[in-house]
Amino acid sequence: MKELKIFSPATVANVSCGFDVLGFCLDTIGDEMIIRKTVEKGVRITKIVGADLPFETKKNVAGVAALAIMNAANPDFGVEIEIYKNIKPGSGVGSSSASASGAVWAINELLGKPYNKQELTAFGMKGEAIASGAEHADNVAPGIFGGFTLVKQLNPLKVVQLPTPSKMYATILHPQIEVKTSEARAILPKEVSLQKAIKQWANVGSFVSGLYDEDYELISDSLVDNIVEPHRSKLIPHFDAVKEAMLKAGALGAGISGSGPSIFSLCKGEENAKKVAEAVIEVYKDKSINYDVYVSKINTKGIKIINLK
Amino acid sequence: MKELKIFSPATVANVSCGFDVLGFCLDTIGDEMIIRKTVEKGVRITKIVGADLPFETKKNVAGVAALAIMNAANPDFGVEIEIYKNIKPGSGVGSSSASASGAVWAINELLGKPYNKQELTAFGMKGEAIASGAEHADNVAPGIFGGFTLVKQLNPLKVVQLPTPSKMYATILHPQIEVKTSEARAILPKEVSLQKAIKQWANVGSFVSGLYDEDYELISDSLVDNIVEPHRSKLIPHFDAVKEAMLKAGALGAGISGSGPSIFSLCKGEENAKKVAEAVIEVYKDKSINYDVYVSKINTKGIKIINLK
Repeated sequence: MKELKIFSPATVANVSCGFDVLGFCLDTIGDEMIIRKTVEKGVRITKIVGADLPFETKKNVAGVAALAIMNAANPDFGVEIEIYKNIKPGSGVGSSSASASGAVWAINELLGKPYNKQELTAFGMKGEAIASGAEHADNVAPGIFGGFTLVKQLNPLKVVQLPTPSKMYATILHPQIEVKTSEARAILPKEVSLQKAIKQWANVGSFVSGLYDEDYELISDSLVDNIVEPHRSKLIPHFDAVKEAMLKAGALGAGISGSGPSIFSLCKGEENAKKVAEAVIEVYKDKSINYDVYVSKINTKGIKIINLK
Repeated sequence: MKELKIFSPATVANVSCGFDVLGFCLDTIGDEMIIRKTVEKGVRITKIVGADLPFETKKNVAGVAALAIMNAANPDFGVEIEIYKNIKPGSGVGSSSASASGAVWAINELLGKPYNKQELTAFGMKGEAIASGAEHADNVAPGIFGGFTLVKQLNPLKVVQLPTPSKMYATILHPQIEVKTSEARAILPKEVSLQKAIKQWANVGSFVSGLYDEDYELISDSLVDNIVEPHRSKLIPHFDAVKEAMLKAGALGAGISGSGPSIFSLCKGEENAKKVAEAVIEVYKDKSINYDVYVSKINTKGIKIINLK
């Protein structure tokens, strides 16, 4: 194999109760990337379509992630990377991590798969750190593993693969406004009440149980965030109206995707997910903000090969 | 059925990462109770052996819990209750809740089982409230449900039954000192750092996943409590030495049982649980504190009938 073209999916981090910990992988939105072996060693970004991102390897998340795995493996070849962005940077559905995880996943294929998913996630985090200023895995992990993931700890990294109930869909609204990650972070409280924290970990526990038992009612009841959402939702125009419309249309739950501005919902079945999408459009159609709405089955495979040479 | 004798087991609440939420049920330590139909309506406590507890129905946790279910069902009979305490009050392994949950469980049998486990837990909580000043379910639920339980929420009550890995054992040390519940509660912080809270809910999520997947390594890694244990452990003599001995002897994890003073560990297999018991005895044998050590398989059935008439 000399070259492969991959689909690197968008992902949703936090998932209401699971701030900094939970994430899941989408199927209908994602970037495409071509990763090609070169005789010359090193990593070069040769093409970027669809977004204004740096070509300099050490300033590009895909480049930095690629360097991490290439430096570890030290093969007798280099790679060049073409990035076709469909996930808008700053949308809150893991744009930077799709580039980072796509690069490491594809290079691992070119290397003959020496690394497991945990190791690939760790390489991907190196790229993610360029974008967000800190190493995070809550978007990288669901891209690499697929389905629902739980980042148990970062140091040493331990990602837990969770099961995906068979009828699980997501509907996502992306209002095209900018939420600065620095602002989304600054708005978080440093301390939280023990009582609220207890409710949050009860919900994480019951959410995980609901995934294993395919108990959609329990999943729905667990999709609550009393800690982060009350603060960050202020940064997202019409958040309350969108969330209410999603729930009224039958979504299992709704909340902020990553640090926003995208708003996600989880739904039981495609039909319901489409109904939720219609309800969201009804809220946003007469607002002065451009938006995208996505309906997606949960992607249990993660990154996929489109073709190879 | 006119009368039944039951075994109402001791339980461990909190389980390190799951403060106020997680619990599990023991098999080798518990109270016995006889509950007998009477022509006269109402609830009477007629015998208490092994502990100095009030006979007045409304002051006795079993009495109050019994009144809750009897008032709801309003049958044409009353009950009298005999309590044979083996679980020492104040030990931290659910002494009061064993009385409360035993009473409601047995009365439900005499009534012809009109109530499900969720409802029985809610009745049991009424009795527990007399002992602790607030309605809690984290000891009542594992007694009623058996195995591992997660109290997702109290209002309305929602208990999630979690699976029990087949080789799961517990070793418990009960140092016979008094830890006042009021003091154990007063010592808790009202606020916790968001960073610590995130670690805690990551661990709750991975612990639940570990139970489903019988992943003892993940269970072990998840049995961490950075929020409550650092405060409450100060109230328990030689806590650090006991915990260290338990872990060194191969326990999956160790922590405070309920609000203490008992210290629990979870172990993979009976042999390891016995080894952990020996290690604990080694720490406590030359101390000036009386103690009990229990080794128990996790009890997946909960309360059991010993005999009936």
